[in-house]
Amino acid sequence: MRTYSNNQLERYPLYLKYFKELAAQGVEVISSPKISAKFGYSEEQVRKDLQNISYVSGCPKRGRQVAQLINDLETFLGYRNNTKTILVGVGHIGCALINSNTLSGIGVEVVGCFDNNPDVIGTMVNGIPVHAMDELGEVIKNKAAVIAILCVPMTAAQDVANKLVEAGILGIWNFAPGVIKVPDKVALENVNLSSSLSVLNHKVNYHEK
Amino acid sequence: MRTYSNNQLERYPLYLKYFKELAAQGVEVISSPKISAKFGYSEEQVRKDLQNISYVSGCPKRGRQVAQLINDLETFLGYRNNTKTILVGVGHIGCALINSNTLSGIGVEVVGCFDNNPDVIGTMVNGIPVHAMDELGEVIKNKAAVIAILCVPMTAAQDVANKLVEAGILGIWNFAPGVIKVPDKVALENVNLSSSLSVLNHKVNYHEK
Repeated sequence: MRTYSNNQLERYPLYLKYFKELAAQGVEVISSPKISAKFGYSEEQVRKDLQNISYVSGCPKRGRQVAQLINDLETFLGYRNNTKTILVGVGHIGCALINSNTLSGIGVEVVGCFDNNPDVIGTMVNGIPVHAMDELGEVIKNKAAVIAILCVPMTAAQDVANKLVEAGILGIWNFAPGVIKVPDKVALENVNLSSSLSVLNHKVNYHEK
Repeated sequence: MRTYSNNQLERYPLYLKYFKELAAQGVEVISSPKISAKFGYSEEQVRKDLQNISYVSGCPKRGRQVAQLINDLETFLGYRNNTKTILVGVGHIGCALINSNTLSGIGVEVVGCFDNNPDVIGTMVNGIPVHAMDELGEVIKNKAAVIAILCVPMTAAQDVANKLVEAGILGIWNFAPGVIKVPDKVALENVNLSSSLSVLNHKVNYHEK
């Protein structure tokens, strides 16, 4: 199985968004140089990225079919898979993810939320039930959930991650601001918001780009 | 001026968090091998990272002073700078950022929010006033804001980014899920949440790590 760098994988949703805009405008064919100009990536990189996911060879001189590219990208990214997902930690960020359109249209379905706050257990967030933490294993198994969104404080993150792995979760999207360890078989994507803003703050203060 | 890769810069807040935990436990000295084991980075990388930001040379055989490391990291990351920051787009994600502790203790101060929804203009979010979009330039100048948090839909993102740059903003933390272009002098950090989850979804579905 070919593996991809995170940088490369993160370009694919951007390509997909662009091709959908083009399709909505009635554009049927797109060339690598045009894609390259849109994103500021080299033409070689664009060609390589798209060759990796295209099941039908492109015809670079005459451009690529936009509809085919959308189809290939949606398949590659799993947008048709409806991956069952749970969310742990219904605080500000957790609630915002459930209520916003961040999770819409990308092939994941949130089937349950979890929290340890008695005031929110038993309530619904955007139509999704909030369970107690001790129901974690049972709900994950019953709903066949494979992805977990982790929005708990750092102090609880490793302990909750261990429980998620034990219950059979295969991918963790971690918003806790620090390092958690998971077995090799479990995919981990860290979204450390404080770190990201710190990086920007450093750049602005030291006039780096 | 030395420049740093984003990957490297993003390690520094993690080191800082760890050293603060150690200090709270009364640990005064820490060795590179111990830091390396904690994070899973190579010892060489840890040494290089810390040498880059240390104003006092370390003494690797006897370890490094935790208090000095904290001081150096806080200076390097601008945690003492109180960088004036505004937020545009008081939707689910924008509100969550203001209400959560994501922005606390990392040297930024949100001095104003902006939205185009008449229902929220004039209200406060966690004590911070929400202004109309046409006050953007004036508030940025009056408050000497240099960082903008961009939480608007993708359709509005480039237009708002242009206005921010025109008003003198030097760094944009962009949550809109797509590509925006800014002049070279402006630092840009993209937090594309949908892309990040798509990457995880792909990995889980194709059993990549």
